[in-house]
Amino acid sequence: METFLSFYRMPPPVPRWRLRYTEKMSLVVVGSVAYDGIETPHGRVERVLGGAATYIALAASYFTPVKIVAVVGDDFAGQDYDLLAERGIGLEGLERAPGKTFYWAGAYSRDMNERTTLRTDLNVFADFNPKIPESYRSQPYLMLGNIQPELQRQVRAQMNGVRLAGGDTMNYWINDHREALLRTIWEWDFLLINDSEARLLSGEYNLRRAASAILAMGPNTLVIKRGEYGAILFRQDSHFMVPGYLLEEVFDPTGAGDCFAGGFVGYLAERGIDLSAGHIDRKDLARAVIYGSVLGSYCCERFGVDRFRTLTRADIDQRFSEFREFTEF
Amino acid sequence: METFLSFYRMPPPVPRWRLRYTEKMSLVVVGSVAYDGIETPHGRVERVLGGAATYIALAASYFTPVKIVAVVGDDFAGQDYDLLAERGIGLEGLERAPGKTFYWAGAYSRDMNERTTLRTDLNVFADFNPKIPESYRSQPYLMLGNIQPELQRQVRAQMNGVRLAGGDTMNYWINDHREALLRTIWEWDFLLINDSEARLLSGEYNLRRAASAILAMGPNTLVIKRGEYGAILFRQDSHFMVPGYLLEEVFDPTGAGDCFAGGFVGYLAERGIDLSAGHIDRKDLARAVIYGSVLGSYCCERFGVDRFRTLTRADIDQRFSEFREFTEF
Repeated sequence: METFLSFYRMPPPVPRWRLRYTEKMSLVVVGSVAYDGIETPHGRVERVLGGAATYIALAASYFTPVKIVAVVGDDFAGQDYDLLAERGIGLEGLERAPGKTFYWAGAYSRDMNERTTLRTDLNVFADFNPKIPESYRSQPYLMLGNIQPELQRQVRAQMNGVRLAGGDTMNYWINDHREALLRTIWEWDFLLINDSEARLLSGEYNLRRAASAILAMGPNTLVIKRGEYGAILFRQDSHFMVPGYLLEEVFDPTGAGDCFAGGFVGYLAERGIDLSAGHIDRKDLARAVIYGSVLGSYCCERFGVDRFRTLTRADIDQRFSEFREFTEF
Repeated sequence: METFLSFYRMPPPVPRWRLRYTEKMSLVVVGSVAYDGIETPHGRVERVLGGAATYIALAASYFTPVKIVAVVGDDFAGQDYDLLAERGIGLEGLERAPGKTFYWAGAYSRDMNERTTLRTDLNVFADFNPKIPESYRSQPYLMLGNIQPELQRQVRAQMNGVRLAGGDTMNYWINDHREALLRTIWEWDFLLINDSEARLLSGEYNLRRAASAILAMGPNTLVIKRGEYGAILFRQDSHFMVPGYLLEEVFDPTGAGDCFAGGFVGYLAERGIDLSAGHIDRKDLARAVIYGSVLGSYCCERFGVDRFRTLTRADIDQRFSEFREFTEF
């Protein structure tokens, strides 16, 4: 009975005609692919696959076909190509350049709420100039990971059939490349940032006011990620809030925000949702936020991308149901 | 249609036989009644009615008959008696002692997330020894505001027909009166504290683990208040989470946690819920958390207790419906 009810209360299945229609429609993900050194109270790893585009693509791959645009060095390992390929991620746009792959190292505080960057070697990423393969250009969904806003804008301009485009950014671009950033997000359907970035971008401390200000900058949809405290989706006429999943153990939060983005946009792509359409079902947007939260929470359960080696869509849907159980009243 | 649906989805009305049965059954609230000086970015007030018992009683009075046990000085103003009396709060247990009423003054930081205590004059509260009037002793519901744990225990012992007892505490008692506190909460059905207190009491940073540890200390129900981030209710077999209401303006957060407690326990009393019974409807507990959140959010809209001068039960139920709208998926 419980199982039946949970199943019954899942989002309705995607209609078959729409599946046929969308089966060759992919989500294009642009951003960094990196090697990370990570230190948490649970241990450390020296050099594991990471980068925003990696996490976004892995998370989204449970929902929709994904194609990646990124650059790696000649040290990029076969097993890391394999992990992405095994999840069906298109790698035609994964450029291999002479030199080393972007390397980042960081350490988390005991309570995981603070992160210190120990090292950033941009390497081949320093000259990253996203080249969009011809076969990507007519894809309908685009997610721009946190890179230089001007590059994000150029990518958006190269995609000629986009129905849904959006992305992430960070404090550095908000502070030091504000004008370019504003020009870039003006063309986006959605912006996905964390609470401190939303405050910085809007100049408003109160999140409701911050959201109003940002929704006037172009995007029709704003998602504010609040880490362990969950997320809020804002649109002009409504908002949706979800608390963060309570993990018994946060093993490694690296990539959780990007996995949130991947789950969110992946679900929108799976359902063929056009955020700029007039007739959007609010519940569909809410479910995209829940799927984002689910993917973000799974990401924290292992070091780096390790959780994605075993994670299944059934696991994801099971946690989606759990979200319903602990938030319904 | 919208209105009809909202109404339809409110908690079912209390059955009439139960109303008759419970109409003389009150919630007894024990704690401080004080005068507060408050400074927020929105202004300052020198001396307004405050204190945990005041906020708890006002919030709970929208749900159930309330009787207060507290002490005030001979400076306690007629208009402040009147405010409590107008909300139908029983004042037989509000002792008037020679001297001055407890005075507290504090100032909030610009973002309202930090509070500095500027002054604490215990005055008549220093010798507070709660005397429970005979007519209170057989009341079924008891909420113990944050006072010395040994006094909380003595009050509990004087109540001979209690079906539901619980309360609040604070860092000072957890650190310096730990043994007395543990003896006290051992006899409680519920404990209502904030996240830093839960971590301190349990010695666990992770809230899931902290909750497990605390649920082994006596209470069958733990509510962790997270300020602007909402609240979590934990029981042995389940938990319920709600995000905090997004106010456009937090005018003055003083008393919000106590109003949460009042809304929570007030609703439990209204529905005649016995937390130690085997057959509790989880949704009823969830709704108590929502009502707590609603009352806490209203409290922040004006200085001190001002919002309660005009707040109606209809306002409360309207915001309850709003919570459903922005959390449902």
